This record gives sequence, structure tokens and C-alpha cells, in this order.
Amino acid sequence: MENFEFYSPTCFAFGKETENKAGEYVKRFGGTKVLIHFGGGSAVKSGLIDRVKSSLDKEKISYTELGGVMPNPRSGLVYKGIELCKKENVDFVLAVGGGSVIDSAKAIAAGVVYDGDFWDFYQGKQIEKALSIGTVLTIAAAGSEGSPNSVITNENGMFKRGARGDALRPKFSILNPELTQTLPAYQTACGITDIMAHLYERYLTNTKEVEVTDRLIEALMLTLIHEAPRVIENPNNYDARANIMWTGTMAHNNSVGVGRSQDWNSHALEHELSALYDCAHGAGLAVTMPAVFTYQMEHDIMRFAQVANRVWGCQMDFAHPEVTAKTGIEALRNFLISIGMPRNFQELGAKKEDIPKLVDVLCNGDGRKGVISGFIDIDKDIAQKIYSLML
Amino acid sequence: MENFEFYSPTCFAFGKETENKAGEYVKRFGGTKVLIHFGGGSAVKSGLIDRVKSSLDKEKISYTELGGVMPNPRSGLVYKGIELCKKENVDFVLAVGGGSVIDSAKAIAAGVVYDGDFWDFYQGKQIEKALSIGTVLTIAAAGSEGSPNSVITNENGMFKRGARGDALRPKFSILNPELTQTLPAYQTACGITDIMAHLYERYLTNTKEVEVTDRLIEALMLTLIHEAPRVIENPNNYDARANIMWTGTMAHNNSVGVGRSQDWNSHALEHELSALYDCAHGAGLAVTMPAVFTYQMEHDIMRFAQVANRVWGCQMDFAHPEVTAKTGIEALRNFLISIGMPRNFQELGAKKEDIPKLVDVLCNGDGRKGVISGFIDIDKDIAQKIYSLML
Repeated sequence: MENFEFYSPTCFAFGKETENKAGEYVKRFGGTKVLIHFGGGSAVKSGLIDRVKSSLDKEKISYTELGGVMPNPRSGLVYKGIELCKKENVDFVLAVGGGSVIDSAKAIAAGVVYDGDFWDFYQGKQIEKALSIGTVLTIAAAGSEGSPNSVITNENGMFKRGARGDALRPKFSILNPELTQTLPAYQTACGITDIMAHLYERYLTNTKEVEVTDRLIEALMLTLIHEAPRVIENPNNYDARANIMWTGTMAHNNSVGVGRSQDWNSHALEHELSALYDCAHGAGLAVTMPAVFTYQMEHDIMRFAQVANRVWGCQMDFAHPEVTAKTGIEALRNFLISIGMPRNFQELGAKKEDIPKLVDVLCNGDGRKGVISGFIDIDKDIAQKIYSLML
Repeated sequence: MENFEFYSPTCFAFGKETENKAGEYVKRFGGTKVLIHFGGGSAVKSGLIDRVKSSLDKEKISYTELGGVMPNPRSGLVYKGIELCKKENVDFVLAVGGGSVIDSAKAIAAGVVYDGDFWDFYQGKQIEKALSIGTVLTIAAAGSEGSPNSVITNENGMFKRGARGDALRPKFSILNPELTQTLPAYQTACGITDIMAHLYERYLTNTKEVEVTDRLIEALMLTLIHEAPRVIENPNNYDARANIMWTGTMAHNNSVGVGRSQDWNSHALEHELSALYDCAHGAGLAVTMPAVFTYQMEHDIMRFAQVANRVWGCQMDFAHPEVTAKTGIEALRNFLISIGMPRNFQELGAKKEDIPKLVDVLCNGDGRKGVISGFIDIDKDIAQKIYSLML
């Protein structure tokens, strides 16, 4: 196991009707003037934004608001949010929505207290401080409610990049599984796929002797496999929603990923797909993951055999572990298809002829030097081969 | 799943040589005058206390010290520590040791800023505030490094009682598995048993539909089963020590126990044993757990069958799940014996004729009302039966 620091000071308020405590939590964590940041109309129409406002009113906390965050959140709205916060002297950014809204809120929170262009952080600049952030989560997916990460799409070239910093960890996150019950099956499945990817990316490690985090990751995968069909069958199954929601948070606050190298190649390859086609991140991952894993499998057959056996219940073929490994990847693919995810470029709406462009942006876009590193190093030649596996 | 709040703001610094960062962490979390609290001579003789002092010197942080914490830490030293902190204007308590030292440090930290008798907190009074606490852990066992709990033995009657409060959560905990490599096999095994008990107590729930935390608890149990024989065979196996250490922390910071009722009957029955005989808490649990589970099994056969099947690898007997359930308890007992733990009263040094006394203190000591509650309610009659199962 490798040395690590793990610090997750986010306070999670989990359960029914917890959104009505948003005001109490903002107060507890020192907010006096809030930006309520949200996405499209559903948070408004459902009455959620009103309930959040009421809870702020109850604590006599004033607020301003900025809606309109789109999936794959854009830099344009971030600039707008930064300006608004400065003008209104906002000291607390409250994201009400899914990962896109939270990531946009994080970018705003970091940008407000920074003199330069917030995009610097998405090109690798260290984040030292940010306004306090809170979240009311409406989709179990990105894990941004418990993570120090944010991913934004730069409209000037349409590429997605991530930033990271402990200052981006929310002070509190309100997780009410009821709020996810109105999600369409497709979005629910996209979220489950994203969570599964966060687990696989952590599972694919080059660090030896990490039994505890191996087992913890497997536990969360097994939970998804158990709960996903139940929630697709009955969107109102509160307990299935609840189990998935806590899985999503635990999958990405890194408590199960400490002390080990991680992969993140599937995310990198996917980001170019959702940047170019504006497809759902989860749907992109469903197509990306089996291809990446099929290519990467040879790098450590026993690791893929282990997840196949322990998680997917594939019999271990002791004479031919590569058979078990491959069967496990097929089991993942079948699981994703069974919950309604696309299986290839065509179903995703991606095009074979764009592969050279995808490869180019992946390996050389925005200052990259021709190779991305994870479980294996991926150069342009390998990237081309992996994208071709998705056809 | 039940509503919950989960808040674990402890910063964990894990890995080799991390104790040399103690000073940095005290500074980061605002300490200016430190009480170094420790146990017997081993922390001194090994040079650990000196390394911690050096790291404080480096940051120009002054300190005073108080050693002498015994296993099953006593109220007497807590009073002494409170007095010392007040006299020396200490604002940060740094525990260097295992669970006993940390629990004693927590009691001191709460007592310093309270006008009454600190024992009030161990009789149920709410803990509102405490001095900041940091830890340098030397035994993987109690999980106190990440928990809001403390257990102290009152010398006035020799009974153990627990207190709880978010203010008791350490600001930081330094976890260096190397520091545990010098532990004798018996103490190592006691620690593993304590961790296993923390997992079982959380596993035995009356809450339905808690797949995610069931799976996470199972993951940590599986890790112990894998790593325990390796570390007993080779005490210098760093990676086995590391896996056990993170398991111990995760087992008790409650990230795997949220949203569900928990048991804690085994701990309650054991506390009377270690209070009376001053035996190691882990050794007492090794005798207590199988007896408690054998009695409690009928309350939910399928839960015991589940842990038997998923964790201990017992074949599920679908016609007679009680057979599987019982086999799982036997597997636990055999595991504990295999790492050197006692199997019954005699091996523990407990006496049959003391059972009435144990039962009396358990159910009626220190203000209790004849019944303790957990997975099942235990009254004096049941307690007598369970203690008799340990003979």
C-alpha cells in the first residue's frame, strides 16, 4: 500500500426530506449570502428550489440565484456566476442538482476568490481557496457531492478538463434519495454507469497488496449489481435509490481508493466523446469501459480475473485466467446493456470518421504531450485502437 | 435505510514515517500548546515519543507530557490530565498510543473545558465541546482514531462506560503501520478481534434494505480473514499490517455503519469482563461474540446465514438456513482461536461463580434499568444464559 492522506470533512445529511434542512446547514457552516445554483426547469417545477429557499428564509439567510447549468457544464455560465457572486457579495455557493451543477458551482466558488482566469485551475494550477460550497443532490452519479473534483467543458474548443483541490470539497451535502425517484430510467442508468466507472477506475491499480480497498470497491460494485435492476424496474423503490445514492458518494469521496494508483483512462477517453457529441457522460462510459478494459486486460490478467470472479461471479479458470478475465468484461457489458445503456459508437451517436479527431484532442488537446497515463500509458496509436474497439 | 448524518472530518495521514509529521499536523489544526499523552514504556523506549517531540520542536510548538495510561484506561489518570492541562494552558491533546491512550485523551479533552465532573459524559451527558485532539496510532484495534467515542473505566466500582460526541473526533490521526510491527502476536490478535467485533456489531441490524453497508462491512471482514494469518505468521509484513490498519479505522468511523440500527450487545457484555478481570478487550470479545451470536441467532436466522455464506464461505443450506447460520458462528470462533484468542471463561481467566455479579453490573450497574438494548433486548435472565454459554 502507498502512503496517503485522506481528508473528507464533508458533512452528509442523508434521507427523506433532508432538503428542508439546507438553511440550517448553510448557517452551521457559516454562510450569510448564498448563490443558489441549479440546472434546468425540473428543480424549479418540482418545488425543490422553493423548499430550499424556504429553508434559507427560515434562517434569515439572503440569496441570489443562477439557473441554466447544462449537462457537461460550460465555462460560459461559470464566468457569469463568478461575476454575479462578486457583485452580490456571495460567500456561500449552494448547488441544487446533479454533478454538472455541483461542478459548475465548484468552478464558480474557486473563481470568485481568484484574480486570474478560473480556467487556469482546469489546466493544472493548484487551487488554494474557494468560497464555501454546499449541495442538495438530485442524481446519484458523479460523486461530486463528496469529492474535491470538478469537470468543466471549455466552449472555446469544446474540450472537458478537470480540476481538483480540497477547497472544492463541499462543507455539507444533502442526499435525499426521494429527489432521484422522478429521474427517467435512462438518466438513472447513466448515473449507475458513472458510479461503476468510478469504481473500476480505482480498481485498476498497479499498486500491490491493497486487499482492503479491493474488497471495499468490490462491495460497492456488488451493491450496484443488486440494486440497479430493482430501481430500473420500479423507479419509486426508495431503498434501492438510497443504496445507490450512498454507493455513489462512497465510490468517489476516495475512502475506497486510498493508498493505490488509479486508472482514469476510461474517463479520459469518454470526456472527448461527451465534449464532441454532448452525449450523457454515463452513456459514453458504457461504450468506453469495455473497450478500454479489453485493451488493458493483458497488462494484468489476474486483476481482471479477480473482479470477474469476486464481483461478477464468473468461475475462476485456473488454467486459463484470461478466459475468466474476458468473461468478466462481457458480464459488465451485458449488465450495462440490461439497464439500457448503449453498446457501441452507433448507439451512442458517435461516428467512426471522427476517431482521428478524438485521438488528437485526447492526446494533444489543450497542452497535452501525446500520452495520457493510467493503468497503462495511452498514446495516439493505442487510443486509435481503443476507439476502434467501440465501433 | 434510515435517515442519518455522517460527518468524519478527521484528516488521516497514513503510511511509513508519518509520525514525523505530527508537528506539522498540530500546527495545521491550530494547536499551540500540546499535552503528549501516552501509555507505558514502549512508546518511549522505541524512540517514538522522541520523534514526535522532535516534530513539535521543529514547528516551535511547546508541550507537556503525561504517560502511564493503562489498558482499560482509568478515571484517575483522566482527572490528573485535566488538572495538568488547566495548569499548563494546553489547547491540544496529542495521544500517542492505542485505543486506551486515545480514549483517555478524549476524556481529558472534554473534561478540561467542562466545569463539572468529566464522568457526567460517561453517564449520558451530551458533549458540546472539547480541546482539539490528534493521534499517533500504535495499535490497529479500537478505531478510536476516527471515532467520536471514548470508553473509560471508573475506578470507583470498576465499571466501563462509554461517551460519544462529534467534538471527540480527532482533528488528525497519523497511521503508520510500521509502528504496529513490534506488537506481540497476542496483542495483534486482540486488535483484530476488536475490529471484527466492530464489524459484527454493525452487521447485526434490525433495519431492512441496507445492501450497501452490508456489503461494505463484509468487505472489511473478508480483509481481516485474509490478512490476519499473514500478520500472525510474519509480524513484519508491512502490507498486511497496512490493510488491517485501514480496516480498523474504516470499521469504526461509521462510514460502513450509517443508516442502520446496530447491536453493541457483545461490547456491553465484554466490558463487564475486562472491567472485572482486567483482561484484554479483544480477548474478552473473542469469548463473548460466539456466545452472544449463538443466543441472538434465532432473532434473524437469514442475517446470520448471509454473513456465513458471504463472508465465511459456508454453503447456503436453503432448506435449513439455521445450519448455515450456525456454521458461520463456528467459523468465526475457529478463526479467532486460530489467531490465538481464548475460547471460553477458563482460557480468559474468568470464573463461573462471578456470573451473577457480571449480570448485575451489566443490567443494573451505574443507573441502568435492568435491560440493555441492541439486536435483541437483554435482561438479567438472558444475560445469565449468554454468560453461561461462555463456560
